[in-house]
Amino acid sequence: MSDVTPTGVAFADGAYMPVEQLTVSALDYGFTRSDVTYDVVHVWNGRFFRLEHHLDRFAASMATLRMDPGHDRDGLRAILMECVRRTGLREAYVAMVCTRGRPPPGVRDIRQCRNRFMAYAIPFVWIANEEKQRTGLSAMIASRPRIPAASVDPTVKNYHWLDMECALFEAYDVGADTVILPSIEGTITEGPGFNVFAVRDGVVLTPDSGVLEGITRGAVIDLCRREGMPIEVRPVTVEALRDADEIFATSTAGGVMPVTRIDGRILGNGAPGALTSRIRELYWAWHHNPGETTPVDYD
Amino acid sequence: MSDVTPTGVAFADGAYMPVEQLTVSALDYGFTRSDVTYDVVHVWNGRFFRLEHHLDRFAASMATLRMDPGHDRDGLRAILMECVRRTGLREAYVAMVCTRGRPPPGVRDIRQCRNRFMAYAIPFVWIANEEKQRTGLSAMIASRPRIPAASVDPTVKNYHWLDMECALFEAYDVGADTVILPSIEGTITEGPGFNVFAVRDGVVLTPDSGVLEGITRGAVIDLCRREGMPIEVRPVTVEALRDADEIFATSTAGGVMPVTRIDGRILGNGAPGALTSRIRELYWAWHHNPGETTPVDYD
Repeated sequence: MSDVTPTGVAFADGAYMPVEQLTVSALDYGFTRSDVTYDVVHVWNGRFFRLEHHLDRFAASMATLRMDPGHDRDGLRAILMECVRRTGLREAYVAMVCTRGRPPPGVRDIRQCRNRFMAYAIPFVWIANEEKQRTGLSAMIASRPRIPAASVDPTVKNYHWLDMECALFEAYDVGADTVILPSIEGTITEGPGFNVFAVRDGVVLTPDSGVLEGITRGAVIDLCRREGMPIEVRPVTVEALRDADEIFATSTAGGVMPVTRIDGRILGNGAPGALTSRIRELYWAWHHNPGETTPVDYD
Repeated sequence: MSDVTPTGVAFADGAYMPVEQLTVSALDYGFTRSDVTYDVVHVWNGRFFRLEHHLDRFAASMATLRMDPGHDRDGLRAILMECVRRTGLREAYVAMVCTRGRPPPGVRDIRQCRNRFMAYAIPFVWIANEEKQRTGLSAMIASRPRIPAASVDPTVKNYHWLDMECALFEAYDVGADTVILPSIEGTITEGPGFNVFAVRDGVVLTPDSGVLEGITRGAVIDLCRREGMPIEVRPVTVEALRDADEIFATSTAGGVMPVTRIDGRILGNGAPGALTSRIRELYWAWHHNPGETTPVDYD
Protein backbone atom coordinates (compact mmCIF):
# COMPACT_ATOMS: atom_id res chain seq x y z
CA MET A 1 0.00 0.00 0.00
CA SER A 2 1.33 3.40 -0.92
CA ASP A 3 0.36 6.98 -0.37
CA VAL A 4 -1.22 6.73 3.07
CA THR A 5 -2.09 9.71 5.28
CA PRO A 6 -1.62 8.46 8.85
CA THR A 7 -2.57 11.83 10.37
CA GLY A 8 -6.15 11.32 9.24
CA VAL A 9 -8.41 11.17 6.20
CA ALA A 10 -11.85 12.68 5.82
CA PHE A 11 -14.76 12.38 3.42
CA ALA A 12 -17.31 15.08 2.58
CA ASP A 13 -19.21 16.29 -0.46
CA GLY A 14 -18.10 13.31 -2.56
CA ALA A 15 -14.36 13.63 -1.99
CA TYR A 16 -11.63 12.36 0.32
CA MET A 17 -9.13 14.79 1.84
CA PRO A 18 -6.65 15.14 4.71
CA VAL A 19 -8.69 15.54 7.90
CA GLU A 20 -7.16 18.98 8.48
CA GLN A 21 -9.18 20.17 5.49
CA LEU A 22 -12.51 18.94 6.86
CA THR A 23 -14.63 21.95 7.72
CA VAL A 24 -18.18 22.93 8.45
CA SER A 25 -19.72 26.16 7.20
CA ALA A 26 -20.07 28.63 10.06
CA LEU A 27 -23.67 29.03 8.81
CA ASP A 28 -24.53 25.29 8.89
CA TYR A 29 -27.24 24.67 11.51
CA GLY A 30 -25.04 21.77 12.57
CA PHE A 31 -22.83 24.49 14.03
CA THR A 32 -25.16 27.42 14.80
CA ARG A 33 -27.82 25.18 16.37
CA SER A 34 -25.69 22.11 17.14
CA ASP A 35 -28.34 20.36 15.05
CA VAL A 36 -26.14 17.39 14.29
CA THR A 37 -25.72 13.76 15.22
CA TYR A 38 -22.68 11.55 14.99
CA ASP A 39 -21.18 8.24 15.88
CA VAL A 40 -17.66 6.99 16.51
CA VAL A 41 -16.44 3.46 15.87
CA HIS A 42 -12.92 2.26 16.41
CA VAL A 43 -10.53 0.09 14.49
CA TRP A 44 -8.22 -2.13 16.50
CA ASN A 45 -5.63 -4.43 15.01
CA GLY A 46 -6.95 -3.57 11.57
CA ARG A 47 -10.55 -4.53 12.41
CA PHE A 48 -13.63 -2.43 13.16
CA PHE A 49 -15.18 -3.32 16.53
CA ARG A 50 -18.96 -3.79 16.44
CA LEU A 51 -19.29 -1.70 13.30
CA GLU A 52 -22.89 -2.77 12.66
CA HIS A 53 -23.91 -1.67 16.18
CA HIS A 54 -22.55 1.80 15.40
CA LEU A 55 -24.28 1.91 12.02
CA ASP A 56 -27.54 0.88 13.72
CA ARG A 57 -27.25 3.61 16.29
CA PHE A 58 -26.26 6.28 13.77
CA ALA A 59 -29.27 5.36 11.60
CA ALA A 60 -31.57 5.57 14.63
CA SER A 61 -30.14 8.96 15.64
CA MET A 62 -30.66 10.36 12.14
CA ALA A 63 -34.20 8.99 11.98
CA THR A 64 -35.11 10.69 15.27
CA LEU A 65 -33.70 13.99 13.98
CA ARG A 66 -35.36 13.47 10.58
CA MET A 67 -32.05 13.57 8.75
CA ASP A 68 -30.93 11.89 5.58
CA PRO A 69 -27.18 11.46 5.06
CA GLY A 70 -27.60 10.90 1.33
CA HIS A 71 -25.89 7.48 1.46
CA ASP A 72 -27.41 4.11 2.27
CA ARG A 73 -25.94 1.79 4.88
CA ASP A 74 -23.63 0.04 2.42
CA GLY A 75 -22.51 3.41 1.15
CA LEU A 76 -21.74 4.64 4.67
CA ARG A 77 -19.82 1.47 5.50
CA ALA A 78 -17.78 1.79 2.30
CA ILE A 79 -16.89 5.43 3.09
CA LEU A 80 -15.72 4.56 6.61
CA MET A 81 -13.65 1.68 5.21
CA GLU A 82 -12.10 3.92 2.60
CA CYS A 83 -11.23 6.64 5.16
CA VAL A 84 -9.39 4.05 7.27
CA ARG A 85 -7.72 2.44 4.27
CA ARG A 86 -6.34 5.79 3.17
CA THR A 87 -4.81 6.40 6.61
CA GLY A 88 -3.19 2.98 6.73
CA LEU A 89 -3.90 3.03 10.49
CA ARG A 90 -4.32 -0.30 12.29
CA GLU A 91 -5.74 1.53 15.34
CA ALA A 92 -8.12 4.31 14.46
CA TYR A 93 -10.95 6.52 15.73
CA VAL A 94 -13.54 6.70 12.98
CA ALA A 95 -16.29 9.31 13.08
CA MET A 96 -19.45 9.69 10.99
CA VAL A 97 -21.35 12.98 11.28
CA CYS A 98 -24.58 14.32 9.80
CA THR A 99 -25.38 18.03 10.11
CA ARG A 100 -28.73 19.71 9.46
CA GLY A 101 -27.06 21.82 6.79
CA ARG A 102 -28.35 25.16 5.55
CA PRO A 103 -31.76 26.24 4.31
CA PRO A 104 -32.08 28.13 1.02
CA PRO A 105 -31.26 31.87 1.21
CA GLY A 106 -33.86 33.90 3.12
CA VAL A 107 -35.50 30.76 4.57
CA ARG A 108 -35.22 29.51 8.17
CA ASP A 109 -37.33 26.34 7.76
CA ILE A 110 -35.26 23.38 8.99
CA ARG A 111 -37.31 21.02 6.80
CA GLN A 112 -35.78 22.70 3.77
CA CYS A 113 -32.18 22.19 4.85
CA ARG A 114 -29.99 19.89 2.83
CA ASN A 115 -28.34 17.57 5.37
CA ARG A 116 -24.61 17.04 5.03
CA PHE A 117 -22.69 13.87 5.77
CA MET A 118 -19.01 13.79 6.74
CA ALA A 119 -16.70 11.05 7.96
CA TYR A 120 -13.12 10.83 9.11
CA ALA A 121 -10.53 8.41 10.43
CA ILE A 122 -7.77 9.62 12.73
CA PRO A 123 -5.31 7.88 15.08
CA PHE A 124 -7.02 6.07 17.97
CA VAL A 125 -8.04 8.47 20.76
CA TRP A 126 -7.50 7.60 24.44
CA ILE A 127 -9.60 9.47 27.01
CA ALA A 128 -7.13 8.14 29.61
CA ASN A 129 -3.46 8.01 28.73
CA GLU A 130 -1.35 4.90 29.37
CA GLU A 131 -0.32 5.95 32.85
CA LYS A 132 -3.89 6.83 33.86
CA GLN A 133 -5.09 3.47 32.59
CA ARG A 134 -2.61 1.76 34.87
CA THR A 135 -3.15 3.94 37.92
CA GLY A 136 -6.77 4.87 37.34
CA LEU A 137 -8.49 8.19 36.82
CA SER A 138 -9.46 10.64 39.51
CA ALA A 139 -13.07 11.75 38.99
CA MET A 140 -15.27 14.37 40.57
CA ILE A 141 -19.05 14.20 40.77
CA ALA A 142 -20.25 17.53 39.39
CA SER A 143 -22.76 19.78 41.06
CA ARG A 144 -24.08 20.67 37.59
CA PRO A 145 -26.76 18.26 36.29
CA ARG A 146 -26.53 16.67 32.85
CA ILE A 147 -28.98 18.05 30.28
CA PRO A 148 -32.10 15.96 30.97
CA ALA A 149 -33.32 13.37 28.48
CA ALA A 150 -36.69 15.15 28.30
CA SER A 151 -34.94 18.14 26.71
CA VAL A 152 -32.31 16.43 24.56
CA ASP A 153 -32.45 12.66 24.11
CA PRO A 154 -28.99 11.36 25.08
CA THR A 155 -29.51 8.15 23.09
CA VAL A 156 -29.28 10.37 19.99
CA LYS A 157 -25.52 10.91 20.07
CA ASN A 158 -25.07 14.66 20.16
CA TYR A 159 -22.63 17.49 20.64
CA HIS A 160 -24.50 19.24 23.48
CA TRP A 161 -21.55 19.23 25.85
CA LEU A 162 -21.52 22.66 27.49
CA ASP A 163 -22.76 21.14 30.74
CA MET A 164 -19.87 18.69 30.61
CA GLU A 165 -17.32 21.33 29.61
CA CYS A 166 -18.29 23.60 32.50
CA ALA A 167 -18.25 20.60 34.86
CA LEU A 168 -14.79 19.65 33.55
CA PHE A 169 -13.47 23.07 34.53
CA GLU A 170 -14.89 22.48 38.03
CA ALA A 171 -13.08 19.13 38.15
CA TYR A 172 -9.78 20.56 36.93
CA ASP A 173 -10.05 23.28 39.58
CA VAL A 174 -9.91 20.63 42.32
CA GLY A 175 -7.21 18.59 40.61
CA ALA A 176 -9.41 15.79 39.26
CA ASP A 177 -8.83 14.25 35.83
CA THR A 178 -12.45 14.10 34.78
CA VAL A 179 -16.03 14.53 35.90
CA ILE A 180 -19.26 12.56 36.21
CA LEU A 181 -22.55 14.41 35.96
CA PRO A 182 -25.64 13.66 38.06
CA SER A 183 -29.19 13.91 36.79
CA ILE A 184 -31.52 16.53 38.24
CA GLU A 185 -33.01 13.66 40.27
CA GLY A 186 -29.66 12.85 41.89
CA THR A 187 -28.76 9.71 40.00
CA ILE A 188 -25.57 9.23 38.02
CA THR A 189 -25.61 9.87 34.27
CA GLU A 190 -22.35 10.03 32.30
CA GLY A 191 -19.14 11.98 31.83
CA PRO A 192 -17.55 13.76 28.88
CA GLY A 193 -17.38 10.93 26.35
CA PHE A 194 -17.97 7.96 28.60
CA ASN A 195 -20.51 5.84 30.46
CA VAL A 196 -20.03 5.03 34.12
CA PHE A 197 -20.05 1.68 35.94
CA ALA A 198 -19.83 0.99 39.67
CA VAL A 199 -19.04 -2.28 41.42
CA ARG A 200 -20.68 -2.85 44.82
CA ASP A 201 -20.50 -6.13 46.74
CA GLY A 202 -19.47 -7.98 43.61
CA VAL A 203 -22.33 -6.60 41.48
CA VAL A 204 -21.62 -4.43 38.43
CA LEU A 205 -24.03 -1.48 38.13
CA THR A 206 -24.65 1.04 35.36
CA PRO A 207 -27.44 3.60 34.83
CA ASP A 208 -30.39 2.45 32.71
CA SER A 209 -31.51 5.85 31.44
CA GLY A 210 -30.51 9.45 30.91
CA VAL A 211 -27.34 8.35 29.15
CA LEU A 212 -25.97 7.48 25.76
CA GLU A 213 -26.36 3.76 25.17
CA GLY A 214 -22.65 3.41 24.55
CA ILE A 215 -21.43 0.58 22.34
CA THR A 216 -18.61 -0.10 24.81
CA ARG A 217 -21.19 0.04 27.62
CA GLY A 218 -23.24 -2.51 25.67
CA ALA A 219 -20.20 -4.72 25.12
CA VAL A 220 -19.46 -4.68 28.87
CA ILE A 221 -23.07 -5.55 29.70
CA ASP A 222 -22.94 -8.40 27.17
CA LEU A 223 -19.65 -9.77 28.38
CA CYS A 224 -20.68 -9.63 32.05
CA ARG A 225 -23.79 -11.63 31.19
CA ARG A 226 -21.89 -14.16 29.09
CA GLU A 227 -19.23 -14.57 31.76
CA GLY A 228 -21.77 -14.92 34.54
CA MET A 229 -20.70 -11.75 36.33
CA PRO A 230 -23.68 -10.20 38.16
CA ILE A 231 -24.73 -6.96 36.44
CA GLU A 232 -27.67 -4.67 37.04
CA VAL A 233 -28.72 -1.91 34.65
CA ARG A 234 -30.74 0.44 36.83
CA PRO A 235 -30.63 3.90 38.41
CA VAL A 236 -27.42 4.44 40.39
CA THR A 237 -27.60 7.17 43.00
CA VAL A 238 -24.76 9.61 43.58
CA GLU A 239 -24.38 8.11 47.06
CA ALA A 240 -24.09 4.59 45.64
CA LEU A 241 -21.33 5.71 43.32
CA ARG A 242 -19.48 7.51 46.10
CA ASP A 243 -19.54 4.34 48.22
CA ALA A 244 -18.64 1.97 45.38
CA ASP A 245 -15.91 -0.66 45.75
CA GLU A 246 -14.77 -0.07 42.17
CA ILE A 247 -15.66 2.42 39.44
CA PHE A 248 -14.85 2.39 35.75
CA ALA A 249 -15.68 4.41 32.67
CA THR A 250 -16.34 3.02 29.20
CA SER A 251 -15.87 4.68 25.85
CA THR A 252 -15.02 3.85 22.27
CA ALA A 253 -12.17 6.29 22.89
CA GLY A 254 -10.26 4.14 25.35
CA GLY A 255 -12.34 1.09 26.19
CA VAL A 256 -12.67 0.22 29.89
CA MET A 257 -10.92 2.79 32.09
CA PRO A 258 -10.51 2.40 35.85
CA VAL A 259 -11.46 5.25 38.17
CA THR A 260 -9.55 4.97 41.43
CA ARG A 261 -10.49 8.25 43.11
CA ILE A 262 -13.95 9.73 43.45
CA ASP A 263 -14.38 13.19 44.99
CA GLY A 264 -10.92 12.80 46.51
CA ARG A 265 -11.63 9.43 48.16
CA ILE A 266 -9.29 6.60 47.19
CA LEU A 267 -11.18 3.44 46.20
CA GLY A 268 -9.89 0.18 47.67
CA ASN A 269 -6.11 0.14 47.74
CA GLY A 270 -5.89 2.85 45.10
CA ALA A 271 -5.16 0.48 42.22
CA PRO A 272 -7.69 -0.56 39.58
CA GLY A 273 -10.12 -3.08 41.10
CA ALA A 274 -10.15 -6.82 40.38
CA LEU A 275 -13.48 -6.87 38.52
CA THR A 276 -12.57 -3.75 36.54
CA SER A 277 -9.29 -5.30 35.48
CA ARG A 278 -10.95 -8.57 34.48
CA ILE A 279 -13.64 -6.76 32.44
CA ARG A 280 -10.97 -4.64 30.80
CA GLU A 281 -9.02 -7.75 29.74
CA LEU A 282 -12.14 -9.48 28.44
CA TYR A 283 -13.12 -6.35 26.50
CA TRP A 284 -9.81 -6.20 24.66
CA ALA A 285 -9.77 -9.97 24.14
CA TRP A 286 -13.10 -9.62 22.31
CA HIS A 287 -11.29 -7.61 19.67
CA HIS A 288 -9.88 -10.87 18.35
CA ASN A 289 -13.37 -12.33 17.99
CA PRO A 290 -14.38 -12.43 14.30
CA GLY A 291 -18.05 -12.27 15.34
CA GLU A 292 -17.50 -8.83 16.92
CA THR A 293 -15.18 -7.36 14.32
CA THR A 294 -15.01 -6.47 10.63
CA PRO A 295 -11.65 -6.46 8.86
CA VAL A 296 -10.50 -3.36 7.01
CA ASP A 297 -9.33 -4.05 3.48
CA TYR A 298 -6.10 -2.08 3.32
CA ASP A 299 -5.06 -3.02 -0.23
CA MET B 1 -17.47 53.23 -1.74
CA SER B 2 -16.47 50.51 -4.13
CA ASP B 3 -15.94 46.79 -4.00
CA VAL B 4 -18.66 45.84 -1.51
CA THR B 5 -19.85 42.27 -0.91
CA PRO B 6 -23.55 42.62 -0.04
CA THR B 7 -24.03 38.84 0.38
CA GLY B 8 -21.87 38.93 3.50
CA VAL B 9 -18.36 39.44 4.81
CA ALA B 10 -16.61 37.45 7.50
CA PHE B 11 -13.49 37.81 9.61
CA ALA B 12 -11.37 34.99 11.03
CA ASP B 13 -7.69 34.28 11.65
CA GLY B 14 -6.69 37.85 10.83
CA ALA B 15 -8.38 38.11 7.43
CA TYR B 16 -11.65 39.25 5.88
CA MET B 17 -13.42 37.02 3.34
CA PRO B 18 -16.80 36.41 1.73
CA VAL B 19 -19.04 34.80 4.38
CA GLU B 20 -19.41 31.70 2.22
CA GLN B 21 -15.75 30.96 2.96
CA LEU B 22 -16.15 31.14 6.74
CA THR B 23 -15.69 27.66 8.13
CA VAL B 24 -15.00 25.85 11.37
CA SER B 25 -12.73 22.84 11.60
CA ALA B 26 -14.80 19.68 12.05
CA LEU B 27 -12.39 18.94 14.94
CA ASP B 28 -12.89 22.30 16.74
CA TYR B 29 -14.55 21.67 20.11
CA GLY B 30 -16.81 24.56 19.15
CA PHE B 31 -18.35 22.02 16.77
CA THR B 32 -17.74 18.61 18.36
CA ARG B 33 -18.76 19.80 21.85
CA SER B 34 -20.75 22.91 20.90
CA ASP B 35 -18.28 24.61 23.23
CA VAL B 36 -18.86 28.04 21.78
CA THR B 37 -20.56 31.30 22.60
CA TYR B 38 -21.77 34.03 20.31
CA ASP B 39 -23.71 37.22 20.03
CA VAL B 40 -25.68 38.92 17.28
CA VAL B 41 -26.16 42.65 16.91
CA HIS B 42 -28.04 44.32 14.11
CA VAL B 43 -27.44 47.34 11.95
CA TRP B 44 -30.49 49.37 10.96
CA ASN B 45 -30.38 52.42 8.77
CA GLY B 46 -26.61 52.25 8.83
CA ARG B 47 -26.39 52.24 12.63
CA PHE B 48 -25.68 49.48 15.14
CA PHE B 49 -28.46 49.15 17.71
CA ARG B 50 -27.24 48.89 21.30
CA LEU B 51 -23.82 47.66 20.21
CA GLU B 52 -22.28 48.16 23.65
CA HIS B 53 -24.98 46.01 25.25
CA HIS B 54 -24.03 43.18 22.86
CA LEU B 55 -20.32 43.62 23.52
CA ASP B 56 -21.02 43.54 27.28
CA ARG B 57 -22.99 40.33 26.98
CA PHE B 58 -20.46 38.66 24.68
CA ALA B 59 -17.65 39.52 27.11
CA ALA B 60 -19.66 38.10 30.01
CA SER B 61 -20.41 34.89 28.07
CA MET B 62 -16.75 34.38 27.22
CA ALA B 63 -15.70 35.05 30.82
CA THR B 64 -18.12 32.41 32.11
CA LEU B 65 -16.77 29.90 29.59
CA ARG B 66 -13.16 30.96 30.33
CA MET B 67 -12.55 31.97 26.74
CA ASP B 68 -10.28 34.61 25.29
CA PRO B 69 -11.12 35.88 21.80
CA GLY B 70 -7.64 37.30 21.31
CA HIS B 71 -8.96 40.84 20.67
CA ASP B 72 -9.87 43.51 23.19
CA ARG B 73 -13.20 45.31 23.15
CA ASP B 74 -12.02 48.05 20.81
CA GLY B 75 -10.56 45.39 18.51
CA LEU B 76 -13.83 43.46 18.46
CA ARG B 77 -15.84 46.62 17.73
CA ALA B 78 -13.48 47.53 14.90
CA ILE B 79 -13.80 44.06 13.34
CA LEU B 80 -17.60 44.19 13.44
CA MET B 81 -17.54 47.67 11.90
CA GLU B 82 -15.20 46.54 9.16
CA CYS B 83 -17.33 43.47 8.34
CA VAL B 84 -20.39 45.71 7.90
CA ARG B 85 -18.45 48.34 5.97
CA ARG B 86 -17.26 45.73 3.50
CA THR B 87 -20.83 44.55 2.86
CA GLY B 88 -22.11 48.07 2.30
CA LEU B 89 -25.34 46.88 3.96
CA ARG B 90 -27.52 49.48 5.72
CA GLU B 91 -29.53 46.67 7.38
CA ALA B 92 -27.41 43.81 8.60
CA TYR B 93 -27.24 40.86 10.98
CA VAL B 94 -23.80 40.91 12.59
CA ALA B 95 -22.51 37.88 14.47
CA MET B 96 -19.48 37.46 16.72
CA VAL B 97 -18.49 33.93 17.68
CA CYS B 98 -15.81 32.42 19.92
CA THR B 99 -15.13 28.68 19.77
CA ARG B 100 -13.12 26.63 22.25
CA GLY B 101 -10.78 25.64 19.41
CA ARG B 102 -8.57 22.56 19.40
CA PRO B 103 -6.11 21.23 21.92
CA PRO B 104 -2.59 20.23 20.84
CA PRO B 105 -2.33 16.79 19.15
CA GLY B 106 -2.87 13.89 21.54
CA VAL B 107 -4.28 16.15 24.27
CA ARG B 108 -7.93 16.47 25.34
CA ASP B 109 -7.47 19.16 27.99
CA ILE B 110 -9.84 22.02 27.21
CA ARG B 111 -7.59 24.45 29.12
CA GLN B 112 -4.96 23.94 26.43
CA CYS B 113 -7.24 24.83 23.52
CA ARG B 114 -6.53 27.95 21.56
CA ASN B 115 -9.86 29.79 21.33
CA ARG B 116 -10.85 31.10 17.93
CA PHE B 117 -12.79 34.27 17.19
CA MET B 118 -14.89 34.79 14.07
CA ALA B 119 -17.32 37.50 13.00
CA TYR B 120 -19.59 38.11 10.05
CA ALA B 121 -22.11 40.55 8.67
CA ILE B 122 -24.92 39.32 6.41
CA PRO B 123 -28.21 40.83 5.24
CA PHE B 124 -30.68 41.44 8.07
CA VAL B 125 -32.47 38.24 9.14
CA TRP B 126 -36.22 38.19 9.87
CA ILE B 127 -37.55 35.36 12.02
CA ALA B 128 -41.00 36.39 10.81
CA ASN B 129 -41.41 37.46 7.19
CA GLU B 130 -43.27 40.61 6.23
CA GLU B 131 -46.66 38.91 5.94
CA LYS B 132 -46.25 37.14 9.29
CA GLN B 133 -45.31 40.43 10.94
CA ARG B 134 -48.57 41.91 9.71
CA THR B 135 -50.81 38.95 10.47
CA GLY B 136 -48.89 37.54 13.42
CA LEU B 137 -47.24 34.21 14.01
CA SER B 138 -48.95 31.00 14.99
CA ALA B 139 -47.06 29.39 17.89
CA MET B 140 -47.32 26.08 19.68
CA ILE B 141 -46.31 25.47 23.28
CA ALA B 142 -44.01 22.45 23.14
CA SER B 143 -44.30 19.41 25.33
CA ARG B 144 -40.49 19.23 25.36
CA PRO B 145 -38.87 21.33 28.11
CA ARG B 146 -36.07 23.78 27.39
CA ILE B 147 -32.60 22.68 28.58
CA PRO B 148 -32.63 23.87 32.22
CA ALA B 149 -30.43 26.74 33.35
CA ALA B 150 -28.83 24.48 35.95
CA SER B 151 -27.34 22.38 33.11
CA VAL B 152 -26.54 25.07 30.54
CA ASP B 153 -26.80 28.72 31.54
CA PRO B 154 -29.08 30.36 28.94
CA THR B 155 -27.68 33.81 29.72
CA VAL B 156 -24.47 32.59 28.08
CA LYS B 157 -25.67 32.77 24.49
CA ASN B 158 -25.16 29.29 23.10
CA TYR B 159 -25.89 26.95 20.24
CA HIS B 160 -27.56 24.19 22.28
CA TRP B 161 -30.71 24.13 20.19
CA LEU B 162 -31.58 20.46 19.71
CA ASP B 163 -34.48 20.81 22.15
CA MET B 164 -35.78 23.73 20.07
CA GLU B 165 -35.18 21.98 16.74
CA CYS B 166 -37.10 18.88 17.84
CA ALA B 167 -39.87 21.10 19.23
CA LEU B 168 -39.97 23.02 15.93
CA PHE B 169 -40.67 19.78 14.07
CA GLU B 170 -43.56 19.15 16.50
CA ALA B 171 -44.89 22.63 15.73
CA TYR B 172 -44.56 22.23 11.97
CA ASP B 173 -46.42 18.92 12.22
CA VAL B 174 -49.49 20.72 13.55
CA GLY B 175 -49.18 23.62 11.12
CA ALA B 176 -47.75 26.19 13.52
CA ASP B 177 -45.04 28.66 12.45
CA THR B 178 -42.94 28.38 15.57
CA VAL B 179 -42.72 27.01 19.06
CA ILE B 180 -42.32 28.18 22.65
CA LEU B 181 -40.68 25.86 25.16
CA PRO B 182 -41.75 25.43 28.78
CA SER B 183 -39.36 24.84 31.64
CA ILE B 184 -39.44 21.53 33.51
CA GLU B 185 -41.38 23.43 36.19
CA GLY B 186 -44.13 24.43 33.75
CA THR B 187 -43.28 28.06 33.23
CA ILE B 188 -42.57 29.65 29.87
CA THR B 189 -38.97 30.01 28.71
CA GLU B 190 -38.19 31.00 25.12
CA GLY B 191 -38.42 29.89 21.51
CA PRO B 192 -35.87 29.29 18.77
CA GLY B 193 -34.11 32.64 18.66
CA PHE B 194 -36.58 34.76 20.59
CA ASN B 195 -37.86 35.80 24.01
CA VAL B 196 -41.57 35.69 24.78
CA PHE B 197 -43.88 38.37 26.17
CA ALA B 198 -47.53 38.11 27.17
CA VAL B 199 -50.03 40.89 27.77
CA ARG B 200 -52.75 40.23 30.37
CA ASP B 201 -55.20 42.85 31.59
CA GLY B 202 -52.99 45.63 30.29
CA VAL B 203 -49.84 44.33 31.99
CA VAL B 204 -46.84 43.22 29.92
CA LEU B 205 -45.21 40.03 31.28
CA THR B 206 -41.97 38.25 30.45
CA PRO B 207 -40.07 35.45 32.21
CA ASP B 208 -37.37 36.52 34.66
CA SER B 209 -35.18 33.43 34.47
CA GLY B 210 -34.33 30.33 32.45
CA VAL B 211 -33.95 32.45 29.31
CA LEU B 212 -31.43 34.43 27.35
CA GLU B 213 -31.46 38.02 28.52
CA GLY B 214 -32.17 39.23 25.03
CA ILE B 215 -31.07 42.72 24.05
CA THR B 216 -34.40 43.25 22.29
CA ARG B 217 -36.13 41.89 25.40
CA GLY B 218 -34.12 44.43 27.44
CA ALA B 219 -35.04 47.22 25.05
CA VAL B 220 -38.74 46.35 25.38
CA ILE B 221 -38.50 46.28 29.18
CA ASP B 222 -36.73 49.66 29.13
CA LEU B 223 -39.20 51.27 26.77
CA CYS B 224 -42.23 49.98 28.68
CA ARG B 225 -40.79 51.51 31.85
CA ARG B 226 -39.95 54.81 30.19
CA GLU B 227 -43.37 55.02 28.55
CA GLY B 228 -45.18 54.12 31.76
CA MET B 229 -46.59 50.86 30.42
CA PRO B 230 -47.01 48.33 33.27
CA ILE B 231 -44.46 45.53 32.91
CA GLU B 232 -43.62 42.63 35.21
CA VAL B 233 -40.54 40.46 34.80
CA ARG B 234 -41.45 37.27 36.64
CA PRO B 235 -42.30 33.61 36.06
CA VAL B 236 -45.07 33.20 33.48
CA THR B 237 -46.92 29.90 33.65
CA VAL B 238 -47.91 27.99 30.55
CA GLU B 239 -51.55 28.56 31.53
CA ALA B 240 -50.99 32.33 31.80
CA LEU B 241 -49.52 32.41 28.31
CA ARG B 242 -52.35 30.33 26.88
CA ASP B 243 -54.90 32.75 28.34
CA ALA B 244 -53.02 35.91 27.36
CA ASP B 245 -54.76 38.81 25.63
CA GLU B 246 -51.70 39.40 23.45
CA ILE B 247 -48.41 37.60 22.87
CA PHE B 248 -45.27 38.75 21.13
CA ALA B 249 -41.78 37.48 20.53
CA THR B 250 -38.61 39.58 20.56
CA SER B 251 -35.34 38.99 18.78
CA THR B 252 -32.46 40.87 17.23
CA ALA B 253 -33.51 38.95 14.12
CA GLY B 254 -36.82 40.68 13.59
CA GLY B 255 -37.49 42.96 16.53
CA VAL B 256 -40.96 42.76 18.09
CA MET B 257 -43.08 40.08 16.38
CA PRO B 258 -46.77 39.55 17.14
CA VAL B 259 -48.06 36.06 17.89
CA THR B 260 -51.77 35.85 17.09
CA ARG B 261 -52.39 32.14 17.56
CA ILE B 262 -51.30 29.97 20.46
CA ASP B 263 -51.91 26.22 20.36
CA GLY B 264 -54.53 26.85 17.68
CA ARG B 265 -56.46 29.47 19.67
CA ILE B 266 -56.86 32.85 17.98
CA LEU B 267 -55.94 35.73 20.29
CA GLY B 268 -58.34 38.68 20.35
CA ASN B 269 -59.64 39.43 16.89
CA GLY B 270 -56.75 37.59 15.24
CA ALA B 271 -54.77 40.72 14.42
CA PRO B 272 -51.72 41.92 16.32
CA GLY B 273 -52.82 43.43 19.65
CA ALA B 274 -52.84 47.15 20.46
CA LEU B 275 -50.05 47.05 23.04
CA THR B 276 -47.91 44.79 20.86
CA SER B 277 -48.29 47.18 17.95
CA ARG B 278 -47.44 50.19 20.07
CA ILE B 279 -44.34 48.51 21.53
CA ARG B 280 -43.28 47.45 18.05
CA GLU B 281 -43.53 51.03 16.78
CA LEU B 282 -41.64 52.41 19.77
CA TYR B 283 -38.93 49.78 19.32
CA TRP B 284 -38.28 50.75 15.73
CA ALA B 285 -38.53 54.46 16.53
CA TRP B 286 -35.69 53.98 19.03
CA HIS B 287 -33.46 53.10 16.10
CA HIS B 288 -33.30 56.82 15.29
CA ASN B 289 -32.12 57.62 18.81
CA PRO B 290 -28.40 58.49 18.77
CA GLY B 291 -28.14 57.36 22.40
CA GLU B 292 -29.11 53.81 21.42
CA THR B 293 -27.17 53.53 18.18
CA THR B 294 -23.66 53.70 16.78
CA PRO B 295 -23.12 54.79 13.19
CA VAL B 296 -21.20 52.57 10.81
CA ASP B 297 -18.42 54.37 8.95
CA TYR B 298 -18.96 53.17 5.39
CA ASP B 299 -16.18 55.18 3.76
